[in-house]
This record gives sequence, structure tokens and C-alpha cells, in this order.
Amino acid sequence: MPPAPSRAEAEERDRVDALAPFRERFVLDPDPGAPIYVDGNSLGRLPRSTATRLREVVEEEWGRGLVGSWGQWIDLAVAVGDRLGRALLGAAEGQVLVGDSTTVNLYKLATAVVDVAPAGRTAVVTDAANFPTDRFVLQGIAERHGLELRMIDDDPDADQVAAATRAGDVALVCLSHVAYRSGALLDLRGITDAARVTDTPALWDLSHSVGAVPIGLDDAGVDLAVGCTYKYVNAGPGAPAFLFVRRGLQERLRSPIWGWFGAADQFAMGPEYEPAPGIGRFAAGTPPIPGLAAVDEGTCLLEEAGLARLRDKSLAIGDQVIAHADAVLAPLGFEVATPRLHDRRGSHVSLRHPEAWRLCQALVAELGVVPDFREPDLVRIGITPLYLRFVDAWDAIDRLRLVADERRYERFPVERSRVT
Amino acid sequence: MPPAPSRAEAEERDRVDALAPFRERFVLDPDPGAPIYVDGNSLGRLPRSTATRLREVVEEEWGRGLVGSWGQWIDLAVAVGDRLGRALLGAAEGQVLVGDSTTVNLYKLATAVVDVAPAGRTAVVTDAANFPTDRFVLQGIAERHGLELRMIDDDPDADQVAAATRAGDVALVCLSHVAYRSGALLDLRGITDAARVTDTPALWDLSHSVGAVPIGLDDAGVDLAVGCTYKYVNAGPGAPAFLFVRRGLQERLRSPIWGWFGAADQFAMGPEYEPAPGIGRFAAGTPPIPGLAAVDEGTCLLEEAGLARLRDKSLAIGDQVIAHADAVLAPLGFEVATPRLHDRRGSHVSLRHPEAWRLCQALVAELGVVPDFREPDLVRIGITPLYLRFVDAWDAIDRLRLVADERRYERFPVERSRVT
Repeated sequence: MPPAPSRAEAEERDRVDALAPFRERFVLDPDPGAPIYVDGNSLGRLPRSTATRLREVVEEEWGRGLVGSWGQWIDLAVAVGDRLGRALLGAAEGQVLVGDSTTVNLYKLATAVVDVAPAGRTAVVTDAANFPTDRFVLQGIAERHGLELRMIDDDPDADQVAAATRAGDVALVCLSHVAYRSGALLDLRGITDAARVTDTPALWDLSHSVGAVPIGLDDAGVDLAVGCTYKYVNAGPGAPAFLFVRRGLQERLRSPIWGWFGAADQFAMGPEYEPAPGIGRFAAGTPPIPGLAAVDEGTCLLEEAGLARLRDKSLAIGDQVIAHADAVLAPLGFEVATPRLHDRRGSHVSLRHPEAWRLCQALVAELGVVPDFREPDLVRIGITPLYLRFVDAWDAIDRLRLVADERRYERFPVERSRVT
Repeated sequence: MPPAPSRAEAEERDRVDALAPFRERFVLDPDPGAPIYVDGNSLGRLPRSTATRLREVVEEEWGRGLVGSWGQWIDLAVAVGDRLGRALLGAAEGQVLVGDSTTVNLYKLATAVVDVAPAGRTAVVTDAANFPTDRFVLQGIAERHGLELRMIDDDPDADQVAAATRAGDVALVCLSHVAYRSGALLDLRGITDAARVTDTPALWDLSHSVGAVPIGLDDAGVDLAVGCTYKYVNAGPGAPAFLFVRRGLQERLRSPIWGWFGAADQFAMGPEYEPAPGIGRFAAGTPPIPGLAAVDEGTCLLEEAGLARLRDKSLAIGDQVIAHADAVLAPLGFEVATPRLHDRRGSHVSLRHPEAWRLCQALVAELGVVPDFREPDLVRIGITPLYLRFVDAWDAIDRLRLVADERRYERFPVERSRVT
């Protein structure tokens, strides 16, 4: 076992970090004792430019421009989608739309695919560890359409997906690119290819990878994807999500929700619904304009920093966290639950401990560290390289060591509160 | 024909208007030559308190509170729904939820009702003049469920709905409380009663009445409703919509979109979806927090002014607009397309003219008046009594007279632009 990384090493890495200046692009608490935020994988920080842009959108565009601002807003969902697609998803223009929630987008796309599935395709495949809203949406669709919801093991690889789809009876495979619990990065290309052998469409939930892991949707031939923007894209609480449909597939699919923003000639307000050509057909109601602007700003900031550099820094911090945990947390009963290989790891590290819930409460309440907890026994350390420093990650693990070593969690309640 | 109201009379009415001070609660252009905004029925103005609140939500709650703010956000969709229900809908608590778009909410509720419709209920009833997204959503649901979409005449009364549902073969009646084109106010209670004779549920779209017309949902025994908040509720472009489900009906209905925010024990993240008890089951994904705050502020402002007073002022301005149009616009080929009776009129007045499109363009470009246009021949004058003065409405009609009389619209293109 190598020795624990030292705090001085972490400081040195911050000193030479080319991305370090991006930290100042966020709203930060200037107090040197401010909490260490390792929960950016749940809710990303506020970029300064977003605060400014939101004031402009609200106070100028809405407040003064009023209804006339629709001239600049009307295509924003597609324009922001194009930018997000190009900068973060590896998707050419005309394939990404921003709006609605991840849940609603997943429902729209999964239903659209199942609606046109050939006869004999009677199953939907997902993994048992997929994010609840994904499993719930698929469960609802399976029940409605009389399909089997086929659960495969957690964090599957291409071989497992090949096995699950081999019979040619699967209408849709739906998986998360990065698993919210383990932090595992799934093999997007390999799994997509494996499903394609039997012409099975794969729908990816990119919520835990977008903005943190380079994603080549076009390159991997991905058919469909959705994802959220309030984690690594830093677009704010409940910010609009996105959806991606490969261009060649768009005209064969229809959203189950026929809304005016998805209609071919929206302001003609004609008697019959005809879906818009292209990605616009997956829109429903009036798009949330301030939310779209926040997605735009968050995307611009990530684009400026560059996803490749961000990924390198994320992995380097993750390596430090894992080495640190191995050295000082393992003796206290912790286990690293996240894959160690770079090409199998997303941008958070999950640490398993039977007292995870109380440890998290103690960290927040007494140690000035904000991680998050996931049932039943995981402390998640989110790595957001735009604003997280090596030394922050070092301090977070050191304080976790302290709180576990001194059993300072013991006076916190075992009962879960509703929000963590 | 009585003479046209005079501008002096309008000024006098403003002078004695108890609601006049509310105008200063909005962001206004201080230039005395600023445009007259009679399109608040399309996009309401920005309340000053909303600008402040949005800065707080973004810069303090999100920017500094970060994920810890979910403690105050987690129930916001229900809390804001309760306030909106009490203040604007006449609905007791636990029946209104804010979130998603009107389109998505309409889809959720209409599907939920159709899903449990007794055998033999093979039709969905709406009127041919209903707002496009309503007709489109219903058309999609009818197609998916193999139902007849039964279109009745524009702006129906209770007798027409009784006739359309008499056979007991209707799964759902879906109508707009105020018609977006004509401005007609439908008989919410009478129609709901007429449908109930055959146990037919009625779903009301309140988008063009909420915040402008007192609505007694509980009192009228309404089953279901949806509506938007960016018109008279002044919550901003694409602000989240709301849905209402009568308490006694909630447990019998399930949203077709099974999302984690609608699950019984959201953060347990268990294997099986179980809908939350109560109105929360109609939620789907993560709620848009800044949007909810804007709905809250807009609702508070309306509550403070009082819907009864707002309605009185709206009708008084409408009476003035109609009298003015009769006197000076009718000779120029205009026709008042909105019902004249108070109990049949919403909060906008539609004026029919063959050159409506070019008249609107000329008003915006040269006369400093912002109305809106609806196909094929309507100029809509939106009456928003929180901030519209009698003299504004007088000037708007006078300038419309001028632009028509001098045929100043003739140099504008006949071709429609996408947004009006």
C-alpha cells in the first residue's frame, strides 16, 4: 500500500493546475472557513456569468423587452441544445433539445421508441442500480405497453447487454452512462454496439456524466440520450434537462405528448397536429427561458475550460481521493465502491461504510464538508474540476477520517431525514 | 350608439382607482413615450418583488446555500400550489401542484382520466376553438387510446356540453375557461354540472383566466384543471404551470409519467414505484426552483390586490374598450369579437378586422402599442388590471383608430412572421 498523499502534494498540484483560475468564475464564500463542497455532482455551483445572465434575462429581456423578446427566445431550446451537443456530447447540430425534466424527456423518448417497436420486441432492459426515476419511468411504460421490464445486474458491460438482448426480443435498452451510486462509467460505445447487433435501440441517461466526461454520441452511433443540467453543467436547481435523438431516427419517432411547441407550424394554430421536422418535434409546452439561459452559460464555461482538461483533472483528483481513502479510511472500515480504472470511473468517488448516513450528517454539521449520502451505506465525494481543488478533496477525506476515527458521528440520529 | 368615452374620463377613472398603486410594483419603462403594453395576457410584466426574489433564490439560496437549500425547496411545488389554489383558484390545500408546462400537465391529467374510464366511454370532448396545445394533446391521447375526439362548437354553453355527453359515452370533457381567441368566459359551474349528470369528468384549462377571473374550483365541484402562470400571474417566460386534482379523485388517478418526485418515498430510492399519497403523485422530475419562486411572488401580488377588485377593474376597462371600439373602430371595419356580458367575458377584448396582422405590426413598429395578433383576423387587447390604466387602454384604441383610419398598416408585409 503506498503512503497517503500529503496535503503539501495537493497544494503543489493546485499551484500548477491550468484550470485553477476557473474557480474564480463561480460564486464562492470568501470565508476561509467556508464549507468544502464535494456535492457538485448533485447540485453544481453558481457561475458568476450565470448570475449576470439571469439578471439580464429577467430584468432586461423579460422586464423591459416583454413579449417582444420572444423574437430572441423562440429558438433558444434548439440553439442551446446545439451548443450543449457540440461542446459536451459530441453531437452535431439539430439533434439536441433543452427543456422539460430528465424524467419527462426519458418518458417521451422511451415511449416514442416502444411505440414503433417491431412485433416480438416485448422487453425493456435496464439495470437494477439505475437511478430511481429511470427505473420508475421504464416500469410505468412497461406496465402500460404490456412489456417485461428486464433487470440486469448493476453496472453492466457490453457482454451482459449482448446477453440480455441476444434473443432479439428487446424494444429498448436504457442505462445510465455513469451510475449514481457506484460512480462506475459504463462502456457507452461497446454497449451501444452490443445492442445494435440485434437492432436494439439504446437510450442513455447522461445525467451523471455530462459536463464531466467527454461523450462522443455521434462517434459511438448512439440513438437516444437524455440528461440533466444541474450537476456538472451548473445550471441551477431544477434547471431544464436535454434530450438527444440521432438525426436519422428523428422522423421515425413521435413524442407521445403532442404540444404546440412541437408542432410543424406553431403559430398557424391549425386544426390538426403535425409534428415539426427534426428535433423540435420532441418539444411540448412553452420553454423555460431563464432556465435555458442558465444551461447556455454553464455550457459555455465548460466549453471554455475544455472537457479533455476537465476530465484529466477529475481523474487526478479521483486518484488522490482513492489513494487517500486506501491509506487512511480503509483501516476505519471504509471501502472504495467506485471502479479504480480510469476508463471505468465517472466523476465521483463513493465510499462505503455502515455508518455512512451519520458520517455525512456529522461532516455537514461539524466538519464543514458537504458530501452526499446514498442509501444504504455510501458517502459520495463529487469531483467538479471547474471549482474543486486538490486540497479541498484532501481536506474532505482527512475530515472524514477524523469524524470516523473519533466516532463523532455517534451522536447523530440513525433516522433518515427526507433530503440529504 | 353612445358617444366614445373621452380621454378625460379615463384619466378620472385612473385618479380614483384604488388599484392604481399596484402599477408601481412592476418594472416599468420610465420614459413617458414608452410603449403601451396590452399584451399582458400573453406575457405578464415583471413584478419588482419577483426580480428581488429571483436574485435571492439564484444568488443566495443556490449560490451560497447550495445543496443545503433543498431543505427549503423540497416541498415548494406543493406550498406554492397551496397558495395559488387558495388565492386564485378557490381550492383548499393539497389539491394544486406547480411544475412542468401546461402541455405536460394536461397530458398527465387527461391520460390519467382516460386510463380509468369505464368501458363504453369512447370519446373525448373539446371545442374546435380550444387552444392548439390542448387540442393537440387531446388528439394524441385520443389516437393512442383509440378514442373519438368529439369537437363541439366554439365557446360552448352548458346545454351544448349536456348534449355532447348525454349518451354517457364520454371519458373526458376538456375546455378552456376563457377562450384565447374570442375572450369568451365559459360557464365553469354550469358545464361541470352538465357533464356530471352522466358522471363525465371535466378538465379545465385556466390559462387565460387564472389571476384575472375569480375561480371557485371547490365551490363548483371541479374535478381537474391545469393552467399557466406567465400571463396574469406574471411569473415570466416559460414559468412552470400548475395542475389541480380534486382531493376525492386523487387516489383513483395515476400520472402516466412515473417519476421520482411523484414517488411515495422519494429518497428511499426503492426498487418499485409507488405513487405518493395526495397531489404529489402528479409530480415527475426535479422541480424548477427559480420558476416556483416567481409563481409564488406573482400569486402574492394578486392576493394582496384581491381578485374581486381586479375583476371589477378588468371589466370596467373592458367596457371602456368595447364602447370606444363601437364608437370609433366599428366605422373603420372592426367588429368586437368578445362577448359583451360581464359574466361571459374574460380579461381580453378581441377586435376582428381583415387587416389585423398588418394593423398589429404597425401598432408595434410606429404607434408604441403592443397588442397581439391571433389568426386569422384578431387584434387582442389584454386587460391586466394590476398595471394597465384606463388611459392606456384609451390610448391603445385611439392609436388603433389612427393606424386604421390613415391606412398606415399598408406598407407592412402580409406575410406572417413566426412570432407575434
